Amino acid sequence: MPSTDADVGLLDPVWAGRPVASVTSDAAILDALVRFESALASACAPAGVAAAIDAAGSDLDAAALAAEARAGGNPVIPLLAALRSRLEGDAAHWLHRGATSQDALDTALALVARDAAAVTVTDATGTARMLAEHATAHRRTVIAGRTLTQPATPTTLGLKLAGWAWSVARATSAVRTAADALPVQLGGAAGTLAAFSASGLDGVSIASRVARELGLAEAIAPWHVHRSPVTRLGDALVELTDATGTIGRNVATLARLGELDDGAAGGSSTMPHKSNPVRAVLLTGAATRAPFLGASLHAAAVTVDERPDGAWHAEWAPFRDLLRLAGGAAATALELAEGLRVYPSVIAAHVASSAGDLLAERAKFATGPAAPADAVPSNYLGSSDVLLDRLLVAIEEELT
Amino acid sequence: MPSTDADVGLLDPVWAGRPVASVTSDAAILDALVRFESALASACAPAGVAAAIDAAGSDLDAAALAAEARAGGNPVIPLLAALRSRLEGDAAHWLHRGATSQDALDTALALVARDAAAVTVTDATGTARMLAEHATAHRRTVIAGRTLTQPATPTTLGLKLAGWAWSVARATSAVRTAADALPVQLGGAAGTLAAFSASGLDGVSIASRVARELGLAEAIAPWHVHRSPVTRLGDALVELTDATGTIGRNVATLARLGELDDGAAGGSSTMPHKSNPVRAVLLTGAATRAPFLGASLHAAAVTVDERPDGAWHAEWAPFRDLLRLAGGAAATALELAEGLRVYPSVIAAHVASSAGDLLAERAKFATGPAAPADAVPSNYLGSSDVLLDRLLVAIEEELT
Amino acid sequence: MPSTDADVGLLDPVWAGRPVASVTSDAAILDALVRFESALASACAPAGVAAAIDAAGSDLDAAALAAEARAGGNPVIPLLAALRSRLEGDAAHWLHRGATSQDALDTALALVARDAAAVTVTDATGTARMLAEHATAHRRTVIAGRTLTQPATPTTLGLKLAGWAWSVARATSAVRTAADALPVQLGGAAGTLAAFSASGLDGVSIASRVARELGLAEAIAPWHVHRSPVTRLGDALVELTDATGTIGRNVATLARLGELDDGAAGGSSTMPHKSNPVRAVLLTGAATRAPFLGASLHAAAVTVDERPDGAWHAEWAPFRDLLRLAGGAAATALELAEGLRVYPSVIAAHVASSAGDLLAERAKFATGPAAPADAVPSNYLGSSDVLLDRLLVAIEEELT
Amino acid sequence: MPSTDADVGLLDPVWAGRPVASVTSDAAILDALVRFESALASACAPAGVAAAIDAAGSDLDAAALAAEARAGGNPVIPLLAALRSRLEGDAAHWLHRGATSQDALDTALALVARDAAAVTVTDATGTARMLAEHATAHRRTVIAGRTLTQPATPTTLGLKLAGWAWSVARATSAVRTAADALPVQLGGAAGTLAAFSASGLDGVSIASRVARELGLAEAIAPWHVHRSPVTRLGDALVELTDATGTIGRNVATLARLGELDDGAAGGSSTMPHKSNPVRAVLLTGAATRAPFLGASLHAAAVTVDERPDGAWHAEWAPFRDLLRLAGGAAATALELAEGLRVYPSVIAAHVASSAGDLLAERAKFATGPAAPADAVPSNYLGSSDVLLDRLLVAIEEELT
Repeated sequence: MPSTDADVGLLDPVWAGRPVASVTSDAAILDALVRFESALASACAPAGVAAAIDAAGSDLDAAALAAEARAGGNPVIPLLAALRSRLEGDAAHWLHRGATSQDALDTALALVARDAAAVTVTDATGTARMLAEHATAHRRTVIAGRTLTQPATPTTLGLKLAGWAWSVARATSAVRTAADALPVQLGGAAGTLAAFSASGLDGVSIASRVARELGLAEAIAPWHVHRSPVTRLGDALVELTDATGTIGRNVATLARLGELDDGAAGGSSTMPHKSNPVRAVLLTGAATRAPFLGASLHAAAVTVDERPDGAWHAEWAPFRDLLRLAGGAAATALELAEGLRVYPSVIAAHVASSAGDLLAERAKFATGPAAPADAVPSNYLGSSDVLLDRLLVAIEEELT
Repeated sequence: MPSTDADVGLLDPVWAGRPVASVTSDAAILDALVRFESALASACAPAGVAAAIDAAGSDLDAAALAAEARAGGNPVIPLLAALRSRLEGDAAHWLHRGATSQDALDTALALVARDAAAVTVTDATGTARMLAEHATAHRRTVIAGRTLTQPATPTTLGLKLAGWAWSVARATSAVRTAADALPVQLGGAAGTLAAFSASGLDGVSIASRVARELGLAEAIAPWHVHRSPVTRLGDALVELTDATGTIGRNVATLARLGELDDGAAGGSSTMPHKSNPVRAVLLTGAATRAPFLGASLHAAAVTVDERPDGAWHAEWAPFRDLLRLAGGAAATALELAEGLRVYPSVIAAHVASSAGDLLAERAKFATGPAAPADAVPSNYLGSSDVLLDRLLVAIEEELT
Repeated sequence: MPSTDADVGLLDPVWAGRPVASVTSDAAILDALVRFESALASACAPAGVAAAIDAAGSDLDAAALAAEARAGGNPVIPLLAALRSRLEGDAAHWLHRGATSQDALDTALALVARDAAAVTVTDATGTARMLAEHATAHRRTVIAGRTLTQPATPTTLGLKLAGWAWSVARATSAVRTAADALPVQLGGAAGTLAAFSASGLDGVSIASRVARELGLAEAIAPWHVHRSPVTRLGDALVELTDATGTIGRNVATLARLGELDDGAAGGSSTMPHKSNPVRAVLLTGAATRAPFLGASLHAAAVTVDERPDGAWHAEWAPFRDLLRLAGGAAATALELAEGLRVYPSVIAAHVASSAGDLLAERAKFATGPAAPADAVPSNYLGSSDVLLDRLLVAIEEELT
Repeated sequence: MPSTDADVGLLDPVWAGRPVASVTSDAAILDALVRFESALASACAPAGVAAAIDAAGSDLDAAALAAEARAGGNPVIPLLAALRSRLEGDAAHWLHRGATSQDALDTALALVARDAAAVTVTDATGTARMLAEHATAHRRTVIAGRTLTQPATPTTLGLKLAGWAWSVARATSAVRTAADALPVQLGGAAGTLAAFSASGLDGVSIASRVARELGLAEAIAPWHVHRSPVTRLGDALVELTDATGTIGRNVATLARLGELDDGAAGGSSTMPHKSNPVRAVLLTGAATRAPFLGASLHAAAVTVDERPDGAWHAEWAPFRDLLRLAGGAAATALELAEGLRVYPSVIAAHVASSAGDLLAERAKFATGPAAPADAVPSNYLGSSDVLLDRLLVAIEEELT
């Protein structure tokens, strides 16, 4: 039997073992907490303190800190005790000076979120571009347009794929914007930066320096109880899983019909013939979960006082879960886009067998003489070509 | 006993009877559906058709249409039948030509959402400005800063109020941006605009003309299965209810302590002395509900095919509910901001009685000689003044 | 243009125009509020008071009450004012005596919920029984079992349908149990029944009498801040929409493949050939929304004090929405079950064309000599017959 | 810097380091998966196979399995490969025979859920009993009843505490019922148990034997696509966090007023004087998150085919998260109940200072001569004593 209580993503195949898992791990969060303390020291403490904090922050016992977190309600309090036990003199004196535990944890999560968003944006960008390439390649591949599950009018696979790419690109842009706006948190006990002033320091300037040091945005003011930086990133991540989930639902549907598959060829524990569209399935699963995580962040954004009485504590885990889910979805979507296999003959056969339905509307609208007896679905594609071009341009605009 | 099955908002005091209720009513939606059909006719049909449609669209029996909607899954199908029964010749021929029912309903909901957002933005802007005024007035009102429910360090009521105003202003800006981006929907049966082409018309140009006629944004392409225009507005509305809910939670908390109230003086059905902070309570209630509605929109944004098989149908009601909830919250928040009453003597008494706690951190950090024995909370306000100024500037930037 | 602001379900085809809409309308709620006040008078006031209250409760202006509700936070306060203006002497004196507005509204919603649950249980029971009949009829109809969208091993349509019926039956039983447990609410201002005692009356006995008069369960104690009676019914209703949503998703999927349809033959606003599985689509849509409504009730169940400061106010609208959604889903599912059309030849053709896949596992497991060359999917049905029988028994147990 | 990617609960102080963390760890799940495979072998394979599987299941590399899970969509497929690489002859031949990966994972999660529910029920039972003891002790402690945050009428601390205990007890009973009903899963590839039949075995009997061996309930039939066993436990767990969250919100509120605290005396990273009600805060935080997790399970319960195309994959992580959150909440609530400190003099002072308000209703209702001038809140407690007795009885009934 396994010998440890640590979790490694066994129930989360969409992100387990991927880069987004590493950059959001408990270890990464601990590391980011130490980096906050170090950057704060760089901004206001004597030379050498920051380096001493960095040194003290290695080989911490995350499991012990996690278990001790309940006494104060967050992991920063035991972390500071652990660091302090390894520091002396100035370093111990200056550690965390002027800050509150929420400063450290909010900033650490912003750092982790920025890193997670970066790998997510890279994979999502790749997904949109790869789908756009497929769309261009399939500009003339006529496929049955379907509405409410039934054949409607013809469309092109290119237009369909470009739509998926466009949604991914828009969401990618939203994620990037929200991640770039993630601010440092530095407000002190009640958001007034009073402990800095009491020490003759200018807290607002120090906050700017910490932001620069860590590569985060500056905040107008402490945002301990104003959580839109978190909810905006959360909303953008859910927009992304909406987009990749739509790809998943479509690919699963078309794989069922044999028109395309996701290149996964997922196996079964009992059936030797199986070739499951596992990537599509995982994207659908991720999209099923994500809205609840995003909403959880909003519920946690209704706060009180200068620092909240429970709402803040409800934010951390869903925020990380959502970063992982969206990051895993982007990586999975990229694999799907790269592995996408199209079966033109099946597509064409379905178009042919439902041609009467696909052209039923055309018969109603064609002007002039009666619709020609030899009408074929490829003659009823409307503005699909123009729309595809518009989408391709828009995709690139969103991505750059 | 009341004699009708129609709903008038009896269970929704936050929005019942307010302008946002009128602009989102079933009647308003029916009207917007007719306006879509009329604008479409203006864009491509012979002169007179649009006017005939407008005329046919009066005095429709909404209840009958609602009940008939189940046969086709949406209310547009029976509406068109009702209109057609009142039209003749060209008008009947051109009605809805080239469009699909989703074109009509998506556009109608965009129109209604735009109107709802407009009243919401007005009230939310007023709220932010009024709170900013209060903040300026209370720049020097020292109040106990509280964290995790307990006295922390002192702050000012001005800084607290400015924070609330800033969150409202940011959300207001987000709502305005998302509402301004609401696009017209025109794609035809499967999003290719094919029926226009078949009639020798250019669907893309017609879509532009309809957008201009109705004052909506143009879409890059049909967004039947790409719902970020809806989810983005939804997310912004939830950000707004987060912000007003935070005001509600804070005002309810401070009203409990007697430091301020919301001017509502809500009565009771049995207790003659009662003066309940009803506005704060309603804002808290709205914020409890909104995240679920916003998330519902995301769940409905995972789609399939060229038009979805249930997801779209799950979007309409929560979208309207969220528009109403946020609109009602903005109106309620404005009343709260206008009615806000501050009890400086209670605030001061609490500061005095917890002065030891409020200055405990100061004793730790004050440099030089030991903190003066006569230290008072108003000497430990840190950067509160600077932060207030920064917030006041940022609020105006968001609002203009 | 329509002339009224009242809503008639235009955005909710799943329940508009159905009995569940009538029994949950604002009018029905007003009526239930009056019935509570009347029953309370019956339990403790002099003869004639209850009848006077009943008389005063006719022809109320619901829209005016809804708009006035915001002043006190709920519609009971203006309702009492309206009633009182029509009452004299004893009747005015005894109206609402000892009760708080939450007593009236909680009891009224319990009454409405009981009525909504009743029509829902009837339709859901019919659905389960009809599906069980189909299951029996299709005990030997071999169909491709599918997992992760791909052919797996063969199964029977009977077993598939019996599974759907079983889930509906289990949920129906849960709804019935939770609805039967809905208690009367009577606690007075802060849940101590003190105003009764002060009048020399026994509040606990009066609560029992009111419960009997209205046909609701007795409560152990006032449940103003203990909302499991509501959340349990909510959870059961969501279990029901999970079950009907599963039917919807399956029927939509199989309709796509041509194996069966829901008998709806939904039309299109533009395509003359369309026959959409609209019932399946509406069931899928309802199942997409319901979990958010059920969760909203749980969020509203975290309360404070003797009566809550916003949570309660967040409960009413989602509770009614969920009652309607589940009631509409049950009615739609019954229509689907009654209209279900099976296309055995398409099913058989798909079994034949995927026979190799469907029997791939069998080749691995068949004992003795190599699997016969003439193996057919109907030879690999395992315990499907026994399982079907077990399910049919369990369905009846749940329903009776 | 920490050297591993494994998570130890750093962001989840409510459950980190507690028994519920151990019994739900990835290691525990792996162990349960191996126990399923072993029990299946016990039920149908030659002697020795089960023991060989048990032996092979030690020291597995969970991280590697997690990362490999994405290829097939779940961790069972790589687990079987790992086990098989360590098995020979009969054992390799019989491993997982007749089962599908969902059989293994559903059963493993049922085992883990049962264990998590057991520790949760123990702690929740202790919580309810301890609160009931406090309630008895405070039967005569008059406290200000508050509604919508304001003084209402007097009540007793005993009645208030008994209400909390009753909600916890009811939820505990619901959790126990749902946990006891968790069934084994055994259906094979498509839920027909066909591979057993093909081997001359009776799958239904084998499923019974596996259930007995593992101490789980038998299923009527495979529940691969019928998830009410999961959602019912989920709903009960959310009911529990509603109840503990209500305690948290109340204790935080009363700690703010100084009337009681939770014995936590939570420290601050910067303020030496701080004594935060951290247990109350963590309970509030848990209650904020739980409804979203419960709803996520319902969204995952809308399925298709014989095994789902994404919904099932969306269930695992939220199910475990919810087990942990509710388990941590129960443990925290027990600590709160055990540590609860009451400050009678503060309570009495608040009663005295608001006596006029608390008796305002009494003045309206007292019969006979005018209310005595010396009325005190302890004379206006209504049926609080009787209600307390009823609750104490009901609590014990729920717990036994």
